[in-house]
Amino acid sequence: MPVVRIDMWEGRTLEQKDDLIREVTEAVVKALKVSHQDVVVILSEVSKDHWGVGGQRSSRKK
Amino acid sequence: MPVVRIDMWEGRTLEQKDDLIREVTEAVVKALKVSHQDVVVILSEVSKDHWGVGGQRSSRKK
Amino acid sequence: MPVVRIDMWEGRTLEQKDDLIREVTEAVVKALKVSHQDVVVILSEVSKDHWGVGGQRSSRKK
Amino acid sequence: MPVVRIDMWEGRTLEQKDDLIREVTEAVVKALKVSHQDVVVILSEVSKDHWGVGGQRSSRKK
Amino acid sequence: MPVVRIDMWEGRTLEQKDDLIREVTEAVVKALKVSHQDVVVILSEVSKDHWGVGGQRSSRKK
Amino acid sequence: MPVVRIDMWEGRTLEQKDDLIREVTEAVVKALKVSHQDVVVILSEVSKDHWGVGGQRSSRKK
Repeated sequence: MPVVRIDMWEGRTLEQKDDLIREVTEAVVKALKVSHQDVVVILSEVSKDHWGVGGQRSSRKK
Repeated sequence: MPVVRIDMWEGRTLEQKDDLIREVTEAVVKALKVSHQDVVVILSEVSKDHWGVGGQRSSRKK
Repeated sequence: MPVVRIDMWEGRTLEQKDDLIREVTEAVVKALKVSHQDVVVILSEVSKDHWGVGGQRSSRKK
Repeated sequence: MPVVRIDMWEGRTLEQKDDLIREVTEAVVKALKVSHQDVVVILSEVSKDHWGVGGQRSSRKK
Repeated sequence: MPVVRIDMWEGRTLEQKDDLIREVTEAVVKALKVSHQDVVVILSEVSKDHWGVGGQRSSRKK
Repeated sequence: MPVVRIDMWEGRTLEQKDDLIREVTEAVVKALKVSHQDVVVILSEVSKDHWGVGGQRSSRKK
């Protein structure tokens, strides 16, 4: 019963999120030999203002 | 000083969230013999669009 | 389908952990009106060396 | 730059974990159109003693 | 490649968040001798309604 | 009352971890104007076998 959490920048379409949930679930099922119903995927959208790399928020990058 | 994080679908009332914080804190206090003030509970509401089970977002389920 | 994660200091007995899982699950069921089978609780034991409050690891406190 | 965290029961082989990291990365790349190097996957093995469903630790299930 | 996640009450200014990302990155670089580009900081704002201490949500405290 | 969680590769000395807790706490205090006692830092050591970048576990990198 794996629980997958994905932190990512906000701004994806609903279709992309659907793809992400479906593809990641398939990947977990394939690698761990668990059933689809046992895989939980939680998406967490993070503002670029709140995501820093190298000491600087990502919304600042040109 | 336990830290409890609860991911759940959005849509609960403030009263339900108050209940959740209070009840979970009591549960932790009772099981671990810590003081109430040492228990931190952080609620995280997740859209059903962002919560997938079985490869499909929960907002799709009828 | 709430997912509860509890970070706590290591050193609890298996019985205490069983209590914790049971009591917290009951608390979530009661507050959110979900079924028991929908509640996932994940315990995460943290060494006092790895838990800092006030800038100091907790294993240092007398 | 998505960060993926997977909580799962302990006991997988190194080969399974390699598969998991590779397959999940591919899934994220495909769904979000990011580059492979931007995907971070962190696996977290959880003892069945520490994973509760329905109020009961998973190590108790026969 | 440390990943730092900070849960905090909502309500900080963008300037405070910039300071936080920069200062925490510097702290990690200094303590762990990693390069700036290897440090990811993810800020997560939590409503005081969703943050409980002592069994009570923080928005209730006077 | 910020809660800071740091995922990092295992293998740091206790002294480095002490530095990390102290420095990160100072950084949060400085940026957010909170008191030292309100800052919780939780370190989480991750095996390089469990940390993947670019689809490959970090223990594989030469």
